[in-house]
Amino acid sequence: MSETPDSAVRTYIRQHSAAFVDELVEWLRIPSVSAQPEHAGDVRRSADWLAAALRETGFPVAEIWETPGAPAVYAEWPAEDPDAPTVLVYGHHDVQPAAREDGWDTDPFDPVVTGNRLYARGAADDKGQVFFHTLGVRAHLAATGRTAPAVTLKLLIEGEEESGSPHFRDLVERHAGRLAADAVIVSDTGMWSETTPTVCTGMRGLAECEITFEGPGQDIHSGSFGGAVPNPATVAARIVAALHDEDERVTVPGFYDGIPPLTDAERRLFAELPFDEESWLRTAHSRATLGEHGWTTLERLWARPTAEVNGIGGGYQGAGGKTIVPASATVKLSFRLVAGQEPEKIERAVADWVAERVPAGIRHRIAFSAATRPCLTPLDHPALRSVVRAMGRAFDGETIRFTREGGSGPAADLQDVLGAPVLFLGISVPSDGWHAPNEKVELDLLLKGVEASAHLWEDLAGTLRGTGGPDA
Amino acid sequence: MSETPDSAVRTYIRQHSAAFVDELVEWLRIPSVSAQPEHAGDVRRSADWLAAALRETGFPVAEIWETPGAPAVYAEWPAEDPDAPTVLVYGHHDVQPAAREDGWDTDPFDPVVTGNRLYARGAADDKGQVFFHTLGVRAHLAATGRTAPAVTLKLLIEGEEESGSPHFRDLVERHAGRLAADAVIVSDTGMWSETTPTVCTGMRGLAECEITFEGPGQDIHSGSFGGAVPNPATVAARIVAALHDEDERVTVPGFYDGIPPLTDAERRLFAELPFDEESWLRTAHSRATLGEHGWTTLERLWARPTAEVNGIGGGYQGAGGKTIVPASATVKLSFRLVAGQEPEKIERAVADWVAERVPAGIRHRIAFSAATRPCLTPLDHPALRSVVRAMGRAFDGETIRFTREGGSGPAADLQDVLGAPVLFLGISVPSDGWHAPNEKVELDLLLKGVEASAHLWEDLAGTLRGTGGPDA
Repeated sequence: MSETPDSAVRTYIRQHSAAFVDELVEWLRIPSVSAQPEHAGDVRRSADWLAAALRETGFPVAEIWETPGAPAVYAEWPAEDPDAPTVLVYGHHDVQPAAREDGWDTDPFDPVVTGNRLYARGAADDKGQVFFHTLGVRAHLAATGRTAPAVTLKLLIEGEEESGSPHFRDLVERHAGRLAADAVIVSDTGMWSETTPTVCTGMRGLAECEITFEGPGQDIHSGSFGGAVPNPATVAARIVAALHDEDERVTVPGFYDGIPPLTDAERRLFAELPFDEESWLRTAHSRATLGEHGWTTLERLWARPTAEVNGIGGGYQGAGGKTIVPASATVKLSFRLVAGQEPEKIERAVADWVAERVPAGIRHRIAFSAATRPCLTPLDHPALRSVVRAMGRAFDGETIRFTREGGSGPAADLQDVLGAPVLFLGISVPSDGWHAPNEKVELDLLLKGVEASAHLWEDLAGTLRGTGGPDA
Repeated sequence: MSETPDSAVRTYIRQHSAAFVDELVEWLRIPSVSAQPEHAGDVRRSADWLAAALRETGFPVAEIWETPGAPAVYAEWPAEDPDAPTVLVYGHHDVQPAAREDGWDTDPFDPVVTGNRLYARGAADDKGQVFFHTLGVRAHLAATGRTAPAVTLKLLIEGEEESGSPHFRDLVERHAGRLAADAVIVSDTGMWSETTPTVCTGMRGLAECEITFEGPGQDIHSGSFGGAVPNPATVAARIVAALHDEDERVTVPGFYDGIPPLTDAERRLFAELPFDEESWLRTAHSRATLGEHGWTTLERLWARPTAEVNGIGGGYQGAGGKTIVPASATVKLSFRLVAGQEPEKIERAVADWVAERVPAGIRHRIAFSAATRPCLTPLDHPALRSVVRAMGRAFDGETIRFTREGGSGPAADLQDVLGAPVLFLGISVPSDGWHAPNEKVELDLLLKGVEASAHLWEDLAGTLRGTGGPDA
């Protein structure tokens, strides 16, 4: 009984899925939180673990690449055919901070499998989606009888994505020769839903800052001094409040400069998706929508830039009251950026705008983390057809629609430095809870990610060579 | 060699001051923080300690008075003359929260004497100023040869002042018979400065609330959801920012209703004080003044009401960044009130004003602590002359000027319930750092407090009887 390539891939995946999940669980136990210095050793352990796993997968090259911050992992598996195109897969092995007391039902670093779900910090963002490529490439080899992938396969898995990838561009520039590729596959995004498989075609950029406002040299009595000296918590609040106008538009001068209008075709692709506000609100754990006036929710999330306060703190936050004028207050802001916005310009505009709003008697410091640029896949690129076909085979021929991603990743740096188109292959769904308590991944979707990865390299070998894919 | 009453008092105080300070230090070691439930046992220990100390001082009655919260201490020492007037001394034995890491140079509950200064939480606010009455009454007896005070002396030392005295009014109402007095002496205020002795003639009232804003059911990804749902930290900031207009006037409707205009005489009394903005700013640990336009700093502090944010918190406040829309945010606000303002009306107005500003999708709760009413001493009351004379003798005949207190205390409840005038006797100075790290008391001033207390009872026995004081 001869097998089709699709059934051969499925058979191989079925035989190896239990071991695959066990290995992923082992990786998820490592709390590779790049934002917290006390976890620096764990981020390194995570990199070492992955490099070893990639060598075991068959990659002849699997190295740790140092940065001034957390290490990245680089792996390479040359195609047999020296003229085969080269594809670079991007992902990250660091994770967001997580603690049981944030609202997790289980320890975020003690993975739990319940039915079809694997709960752990990093299950979906991004260890699960990095790891599906390991079983994917082995299924590709098993189903095709090849001893090396149909394309020269490179992996660059960074360790600082959740900290804004501060050294990523520099890393890519230093290693541009070894990273050279005909296309970049980013596996750090998601799909519309469990029942509507999609391919992402863009991510927003990100600028982040922390602003500290210093008032009195120490907390002072609000009765003895309050009402007669500036209060840094009030100044912090006024700046957050002034960020948006009554139409929820960002007020920082020049913020929207350079953004091309959304085309009718793009708006139609958004509108084709089965958006249901009530179910979206459930996924957002929210009770109402609110955003820039004049745009739909999907347009707000995918095509419009935002300003958000991620944290604010100042003065007494313990039980009961404390009648003080606080000594200081701190605000953490982030700005999601879309194509046409330059992070550097936005940062300068924000810094100037804040400085103008700080009254005499308050000192402030503003510190920006490394910014991430926005990124868009050209809708007419032939490699995008390969990605759509690979997803279609994994999802039993279902129509694959297009989304964008409201989140951010350093994909644009790869596009800029390597001159290669960026494509997205991800199977996470909105309910996976990225950056939230009880992050999880759906195991059946994770295995469809494996399957799409297994199909992708053969297809891309065709489209990237300019010879057309299987259905060309 | 015969002694004058003044030198007899001084001799007695000199002989007993070392033991007096030792005892005070023992009391200050008890961390009687009423705002923190974990210190409830310490507040009780503090009450027990004080009651024992008052019995040792000679008070025939010294009791613990229970409340639904922290206990108060009541003591009574009847005059020999059954027709002598009765004076009630008010103070508090609880203290503000304090922790070494707030910026204290030493442990706030391990008192340190350095030269003329005693550093400890509560050294000035209010244990030191309560305690000076113990040595004061003994010096009074020693200098006059009396075996009981010239007035029937009552002490009510509460245990919840730093928590807004939530049960104080009820306590006073329940015990109104035993508390009956011809005048109330509040020892919970300060003087203008070390070199300008003053008597306080009023305190502001206080309303306090904590507002919690709940948005998403958990922290959610700012890229996936931000800009399309309301952010509770933004809502909190907008409410704090909206509290004041561009003239730094409070915008809550009706906030200023009922406040009588400041008279020219009152403004003159304020203006007579040697106010120096630079040195005041040093005391305030601040770099600039800012407040309601059209008023001097002293007017802002003493005669005008304020709105202040004492604490704000929401979202991620740890190291680095976390790109979330936070699940919730909390704001602690306090309002200083002046004569003419009714705390209940202010609370209703604030609650309504906040409710109007909370957008769909955000839930909020507002909880008010027990309010404190404002309080003013009639400038023409004869007992005020007694206080001024007692202070003048302690301060070697220096002119005693008048101030008010920007802070708050429950004195107005005593005035309302007991129908007695409230007068203030305090020796703390602005640099003592109430509610701040490194709170201290100047020991020489503390002993002048003892001295003023020692002189006051004989003088009040005359003025309150309506027979006039020594110089009448």
